[in-house]
Amino acid sequence: MDQTDSTPVAGTPTTAGDLETALTRWREALGPEHVLTDEASLAEFTDPYSPAGFGYRTPAVLQPGSVEDVQAVVRIAAETGVAIWTNSQGRNNGYGGSAPRDPDTVVVNLRRMNRVLEIDEDLAYVVVEPGVSFRDLYDAVQASGKKLWVNMPDISWGSVIGNTLDHGNGFTLYGDHAAAQCGMEVVLADGSLVRTGTGAMTASKTWHLSKRGFGPSTDSLFMQSNMGIVTKMGVWVMPQPDTYKVCDIKVRQESDLEALVDTFRPFLVDGTVANCPMLSILPPPFRRGDFWDQDTPVPRDLPEGLGPEAAVMGAWNIRFALYGDREIVERNFERIHTAIVSIPDAELTGTFIDPEEARLGNPALADQKARVMAGVPDMSMLDVLKMYGTGGHLSFASTIPLAGVDTRRIVDLVRTRVEEAGFDYTCGIILYQRYAIHVSLILYDVADEPQVKAAHQLYRDMVVEAARLGYGEYRTHIAFMDLVAEQFDFNDHAHLAMVERIKDALDPAGILAPGKQGIWPRRLRTTH
Amino acid sequence: MDQTDSTPVAGTPTTAGDLETALTRWREALGPEHVLTDEASLAEFTDPYSPAGFGYRTPAVLQPGSVEDVQAVVRIAAETGVAIWTNSQGRNNGYGGSAPRDPDTVVVNLRRMNRVLEIDEDLAYVVVEPGVSFRDLYDAVQASGKKLWVNMPDISWGSVIGNTLDHGNGFTLYGDHAAAQCGMEVVLADGSLVRTGTGAMTASKTWHLSKRGFGPSTDSLFMQSNMGIVTKMGVWVMPQPDTYKVCDIKVRQESDLEALVDTFRPFLVDGTVANCPMLSILPPPFRRGDFWDQDTPVPRDLPEGLGPEAAVMGAWNIRFALYGDREIVERNFERIHTAIVSIPDAELTGTFIDPEEARLGNPALADQKARVMAGVPDMSMLDVLKMYGTGGHLSFASTIPLAGVDTRRIVDLVRTRVEEAGFDYTCGIILYQRYAIHVSLILYDVADEPQVKAAHQLYRDMVVEAARLGYGEYRTHIAFMDLVAEQFDFNDHAHLAMVERIKDALDPAGILAPGKQGIWPRRLRTTH
Repeated sequence: MDQTDSTPVAGTPTTAGDLETALTRWREALGPEHVLTDEASLAEFTDPYSPAGFGYRTPAVLQPGSVEDVQAVVRIAAETGVAIWTNSQGRNNGYGGSAPRDPDTVVVNLRRMNRVLEIDEDLAYVVVEPGVSFRDLYDAVQASGKKLWVNMPDISWGSVIGNTLDHGNGFTLYGDHAAAQCGMEVVLADGSLVRTGTGAMTASKTWHLSKRGFGPSTDSLFMQSNMGIVTKMGVWVMPQPDTYKVCDIKVRQESDLEALVDTFRPFLVDGTVANCPMLSILPPPFRRGDFWDQDTPVPRDLPEGLGPEAAVMGAWNIRFALYGDREIVERNFERIHTAIVSIPDAELTGTFIDPEEARLGNPALADQKARVMAGVPDMSMLDVLKMYGTGGHLSFASTIPLAGVDTRRIVDLVRTRVEEAGFDYTCGIILYQRYAIHVSLILYDVADEPQVKAAHQLYRDMVVEAARLGYGEYRTHIAFMDLVAEQFDFNDHAHLAMVERIKDALDPAGILAPGKQGIWPRRLRTTH
Repeated sequence: MDQTDSTPVAGTPTTAGDLETALTRWREALGPEHVLTDEASLAEFTDPYSPAGFGYRTPAVLQPGSVEDVQAVVRIAAETGVAIWTNSQGRNNGYGGSAPRDPDTVVVNLRRMNRVLEIDEDLAYVVVEPGVSFRDLYDAVQASGKKLWVNMPDISWGSVIGNTLDHGNGFTLYGDHAAAQCGMEVVLADGSLVRTGTGAMTASKTWHLSKRGFGPSTDSLFMQSNMGIVTKMGVWVMPQPDTYKVCDIKVRQESDLEALVDTFRPFLVDGTVANCPMLSILPPPFRRGDFWDQDTPVPRDLPEGLGPEAAVMGAWNIRFALYGDREIVERNFERIHTAIVSIPDAELTGTFIDPEEARLGNPALADQKARVMAGVPDMSMLDVLKMYGTGGHLSFASTIPLAGVDTRRIVDLVRTRVEEAGFDYTCGIILYQRYAIHVSLILYDVADEPQVKAAHQLYRDMVVEAARLGYGEYRTHIAFMDLVAEQFDFNDHAHLAMVERIKDALDPAGILAPGKQGIWPRRLRTTH
């Protein structure tokens, strides 16, 4: 077993309770067919990107089919002391997939709760259950005939709620999923049911329209945490725009990075570009053979004389979209163009795609970003794993200011460390209005345990080094949750201490997702 | 004493503790000059719009000058059991001003903490202390020479932090103050200091850029609540736009309301109009003599034959702004115009104002909305109080869907009840992207106690009636906090019960703002 920081220390309490009693009662409550304990069924609910020897496993998977089922599940958990780890689809791959931190924790998987409860065209929102994937939601909206574009992350099999609760992102105007959330229903650890925002009023007409009710808003407490189980959620979506233009900025040299970020920034700050653009290296390194056939890392700036096409390889591009009235889109394109051409040899290109045609299977949506920026489901990013036989990855994902100097600093740090450790550097930098998230996939072969261990060590080292520069991880694999939480150190970790007090108040039995994001219930805390 | 629902029930515990010891220790900690107990000084820190007989008062006002002072204040409060009620400027007029709910609670006023700590032009944010008013912030930005527009509410003397924590609003692109907040520093009830978001990392470079750190976000727990005292806060502001156009839609008949809201809505939902427009009756009723000289309420539709000018009186207008590139502003204006003229006789007018000239004292900013939509401080709305000798008001403010049918329903309800009770109906409906807040000021003479009591009774009746229609109050006067909280009744008030568990975990001594938004600490709860 790998000595990840989630390994229980000998002699400390574990999340195991009276499992046999719990399983008997769960079978009674849910029906035996929804309590999975056979090895074949459990195999799907682990971390697909960790070797078996790392010990990520669960003794059972529960699949409740309703809110009442979820309430029964948590009550039995509290009464028997068996901890549970909830996921929606269980596709949080790169961050631990479906696996709980402690192998005695039982997985609760919500795929059976898969209804799209509401699709409102005038006010542009939907209401979903946790089992609804982005693909399911796209299909439901298409079937409804309503002219709405659902937000879409890179890979569409994940749960809308699950991704939102992990602070995930997508690529339309509602790309910041946590910000697009409005109104939740949550089962607490004692089985009680709460509704947030104005939904706390039974008759409320604005549950999914206004984020704030009377008193404090609590929705964000249920994201990246273990305070409750979300059973319904409102999601804001965009009206189908009049026009859709897919845009692409290319610079010629790797060293243009700072200028590119600083030149593009004002258009994010002022809202001209309001989706989540992706800044990345051209082309992705997993196709490195196309332009660099040597074993050594791709040079940051290619040698002179390789011709204009080659010069772009290894440099940077930004993919983004403009939506709306055609005249306005054209004018904004022109404004961005005027700014970008101040960088020598930089190019901005764009293609209008008829929004009516922005549908699954349309060849006009030739590339992945053109699809997801139009809210069209896609799975092709999984191809990144084909680099190796049994491909897996860790996502190293740091929050930085939206500034050239910071982008350079994180790129240099991660690229240097990744290459020193013998891995290929990849990056996708997601641009928000005032910050960015530098995501680097550390790709490896799951079957090669020493390589996976090297990837884990690399990741640990980078967490600490990035934190020293002031860049925190926005999300992390279950193996590193305590380490990342540890970096949030202001006033001796006062924020985490406060969150733990809330945890203990809402989950006194300590049964919901122990250790998630480094938050342990009192019975399992070793440090304080 | 008026039997408001904040009146302590005989025999129940109060917020009084060992006041004499507390005052002695506070004087030692803060300096005696910052512990006010003389009647003249205390007079300012009450509810200016409630008659003295209503009993809103405090035994003392503390004015800490630093974070360390605030920490000392809460520690002494916890040790002596004397509850404290914090405000920033203490200008929450219409909702209770500076007054605590219980007259034994000591006011903590943060006006002395009035530094603008940071003004960042590239990333368009500022960092302020609680004593900084909107006017102070405007002045600081002007003095810095940085081209940023600060958001501005109708009246600029209030605290930026105080208004934000009460879910207040203003009129630029960052009009939803709670949404414009990014990163807090908070003193908890035990005196410990936390920073939220990525600020929980000491070295963080993104505290005021990214709203989410690692784990759950807790900022919203400190709004409309009593969980801590905010001592610093980041605020997003807008870059000075290239052009600024002040726009005005007028319809001819009161009955055009539904069509007006439904025709304008798509431009809010799709982001074309991104400030907080104000929908109101033309002209405000306090100038009713200009167009209706009878004692009876202004008819909802004026009789035929009063001429085109008169026909507009009593009908509706929307004030909003367009910002940005001139060509785009013109095109958006044209798009809105095309839609609006589908309503018979409706008009859209607009005036460009040079953003360089959008400064205090410029006569080009001829009217109040032109000023505040450009982030220019204003105090003229206080004139509304001149209707009476000692003018006061209650703000009745309900959250409704952004839809014609709901707007009609709340207007009819409030107008009917207000007029039945012998008051004049006023309204300003603040439009957000998917909802609106119908604010009606119930204007009265503070010296006329029976009239104020009638206003209170009217308010109570409307809270219950609006809730029955599904419209909750977004904010309320201290007299009605329990009543409003009571309307948020889903699952036997499960949300409030959860919030109370958090309250007890973070403030076990029950000393921070007892009863704020209906949240009482355990020692003072009578119902559960």
